[in-house]
Amino acid sequence: MGELSGYKGAALRFLEKTGAAVGDVLEVRTSWGTVTGTLVPRYLYGDGEHIVLKLRSGYNVGLSLDGLVGARVEAKGEKPSFAHHPPPRPAGGLPKVLLIGTGGTIASRVDYRTGAVRPAVTSDELYSLVPELSQLARVEPEIMFDILSENITPAHWEKLARRVARAVKEGADGVVITHGTDTLGYTAAALSFALAGVPIPVILVGAQRSPDRPSSDAPLNLVAAVAMAGTAKFSGVYVAMHQGESDDKIALHRGTRVRKNHTSRRDAFESVDVPLAAVWGRDGLEHVAEGLPPRGGEFKPRPKFDEGAALLKFYPSMPGGMVRAAKRSGAKIIVVEGTGLGHVSKEVAGELRLFIRSGGVACMASQCVRGRLDLNVYDTGRDLLHMGVVPLGDMLAETALAKAMWVLGTGASGARAKEMMLRDLAGETTARTFPG
Amino acid sequence: MGELSGYKGAALRFLEKTGAAVGDVLEVRTSWGTVTGTLVPRYLYGDGEHIVLKLRSGYNVGLSLDGLVGARVEAKGEKPSFAHHPPPRPAGGLPKVLLIGTGGTIASRVDYRTGAVRPAVTSDELYSLVPELSQLARVEPEIMFDILSENITPAHWEKLARRVARAVKEGADGVVITHGTDTLGYTAAALSFALAGVPIPVILVGAQRSPDRPSSDAPLNLVAAVAMAGTAKFSGVYVAMHQGESDDKIALHRGTRVRKNHTSRRDAFESVDVPLAAVWGRDGLEHVAEGLPPRGGEFKPRPKFDEGAALLKFYPSMPGGMVRAAKRSGAKIIVVEGTGLGHVSKEVAGELRLFIRSGGVACMASQCVRGRLDLNVYDTGRDLLHMGVVPLGDMLAETALAKAMWVLGTGASGARAKEMMLRDLAGETTARTFPG
Repeated sequence: MGELSGYKGAALRFLEKTGAAVGDVLEVRTSWGTVTGTLVPRYLYGDGEHIVLKLRSGYNVGLSLDGLVGARVEAKGEKPSFAHHPPPRPAGGLPKVLLIGTGGTIASRVDYRTGAVRPAVTSDELYSLVPELSQLARVEPEIMFDILSENITPAHWEKLARRVARAVKEGADGVVITHGTDTLGYTAAALSFALAGVPIPVILVGAQRSPDRPSSDAPLNLVAAVAMAGTAKFSGVYVAMHQGESDDKIALHRGTRVRKNHTSRRDAFESVDVPLAAVWGRDGLEHVAEGLPPRGGEFKPRPKFDEGAALLKFYPSMPGGMVRAAKRSGAKIIVVEGTGLGHVSKEVAGELRLFIRSGGVACMASQCVRGRLDLNVYDTGRDLLHMGVVPLGDMLAETALAKAMWVLGTGASGARAKEMMLRDLAGETTARTFPG
Repeated sequence: MGELSGYKGAALRFLEKTGAAVGDVLEVRTSWGTVTGTLVPRYLYGDGEHIVLKLRSGYNVGLSLDGLVGARVEAKGEKPSFAHHPPPRPAGGLPKVLLIGTGGTIASRVDYRTGAVRPAVTSDELYSLVPELSQLARVEPEIMFDILSENITPAHWEKLARRVARAVKEGADGVVITHGTDTLGYTAAALSFALAGVPIPVILVGAQRSPDRPSSDAPLNLVAAVAMAGTAKFSGVYVAMHQGESDDKIALHRGTRVRKNHTSRRDAFESVDVPLAAVWGRDGLEHVAEGLPPRGGEFKPRPKFDEGAALLKFYPSMPGGMVRAAKRSGAKIIVVEGTGLGHVSKEVAGELRLFIRSGGVACMASQCVRGRLDLNVYDTGRDLLHMGVVPLGDMLAETALAKAMWVLGTGASGARAKEMMLRDLAGETTARTFPG
């Protein structure tokens, strides 16, 4: 670690001018106010356009050079250094787990004094961060992206799917993908389709509290994900996150049935209308649902996606023009989040009719989040069915969007795309079971 | 009830040709298949374009004349008649409750043999439908609309708000509004702003099971709503629906904090991140939250709405063009449902910046449903704050949309509209309390 470790370009020049070093407390003036915090090193792959301060609140602030007016060193810090933890020796015969980083902070190495965070890029570093991992698996870390998950696109899904497929060929016993939680559910759904039939466990994992906070859920989520990816007897795409607020149990969710239902709680992720796939406690798997696919078997990845699908949430007085806009933006499939059992206003229904007539595929999900559509109960629903709207049953709208982009990626369109949207391909919809 | 009660226009002529009468079992051929069911009478306010059959499943089907190919009478039924229930005598000194119908089937009179449903338009009819009501209040039913709730618009919100304001002047002790459940939450939020400070309870109520099904939640919801509207010591706008799946307790939700979170369960409505306002059991109010406003006080309704607001749910690879489309459709305020703590992709953020620069107001809510935004944690959030995006805290996106339309209805725009969106006006957002 140098004096300005990780900084480059304009950011480096700015800091050199102020005489600052990593670990110093800086007062930085910006166009919108003054910020005081400890200068922390950048990620290995950070850009040259930002400096990062650790605030007293424990959060890191990234400041764009754009808005910086000036800075001064308020207090010199000690030169930071990562403590050296000699990694424990991996036990022999451990399963091989590929750990793919996408930019979530979960598999990052942290200096708890400065708050510096950077991806752990070697096994040794990773084991020194979470020593338990070395007892669970031979972990091979690989940073694929370093982006915030709100910027993940279908192009990233495709790269991830291809990498997992290669890992299967290379003999990995499991894959863990660390991912920002914001769009973790969308990515899990996307991979569930692209990797349907994958013969090993592929487990996405995130953290709601960054690893530089004492209350972080990162280490336990990671341990559980690696343990399950390495040794579980089942295969498929899943999400591993805290089951409750306490730091003891990890819920494993099916990739097509999981949703981030809270902005900040550790147990923000929930399986919607289906039981958990598994529960992991500190001593290993405590519960595994019946019917999960076993390891092994045929596998033909279909990793392509096509962005030509849109998600529209209906609301009172929504202009029909929004449907036309989605089409103009290139949507060949539109997933509508209707109200209740799957309804939209007459105006929006009329636009969906035109969209379908022009060759588009319109699908209906519900903004209720939980429960199943029924387009046979009310006039509106029957009109929608009649005009050819695809009823998605109990499929999550977010899953439906990812599926639509995958369906288009297979080259399907029109009637074939409709049929694929309807059919259960990766556990995304279940047979009707009427509540009450 | 005549032979073809309620039918008119083309529908009447079609039925006359087939020789059908209400109560007969008809086999109807349509362009998409054949439907068999019992012909039921139309609502008093039904159109002349549909005939309605009651299927064996218990559901009613409305068939548009458009798609009808032919019909034949499969079996003659008995001439239907509503049983006469002499209404019990209202007790003296009961509170006066205005019961406004908007098209939900909840306050409808039902013939259980034919499944015929029509609004109960007189007190006598209503008391014969739910005799308990006569012991609770002098109920004055008034049908304002007869539409499916997905077709409710801000124009309807405005009419409802004006009617409630008039009821206050006329000395009503409470108002109950029956409403389809699909957009009940949006309407409750809208009225909460338009009627802020209303000196009596205004309780919206719906039913998840239509009154012609033995498992209907309609009667109990209605009894509870009328009881609370008439006698509760608090005022304000609320939603009354089943608290659980069993038919014994009714939850009272604050109008700005309630969401339909399940497509079909009786307890689909939930208070999000706040406690229930009250719980009603068969013997009356069992629990009332602290801090609800008492009856009485100053009241100046602001019933106007302006449709120039849009709700956009963000998703991976959402085209920036959707923001421009919302603006083109007339949106002066856009409520974005971002991911997690309130994030969108760089592309969408860029478009929001342009929207704001052109004088628009962009607000951020979270698609997580539960939890609170925090735009200070990550770069994306700080960028959004920096460009002037309004962070909505723990406000529901649906509530935010209704609020935006109301804010515009007051004539506010620009900085004034921003300030109103931020400020808590009707309990729609609460002071920060960090979980964990």
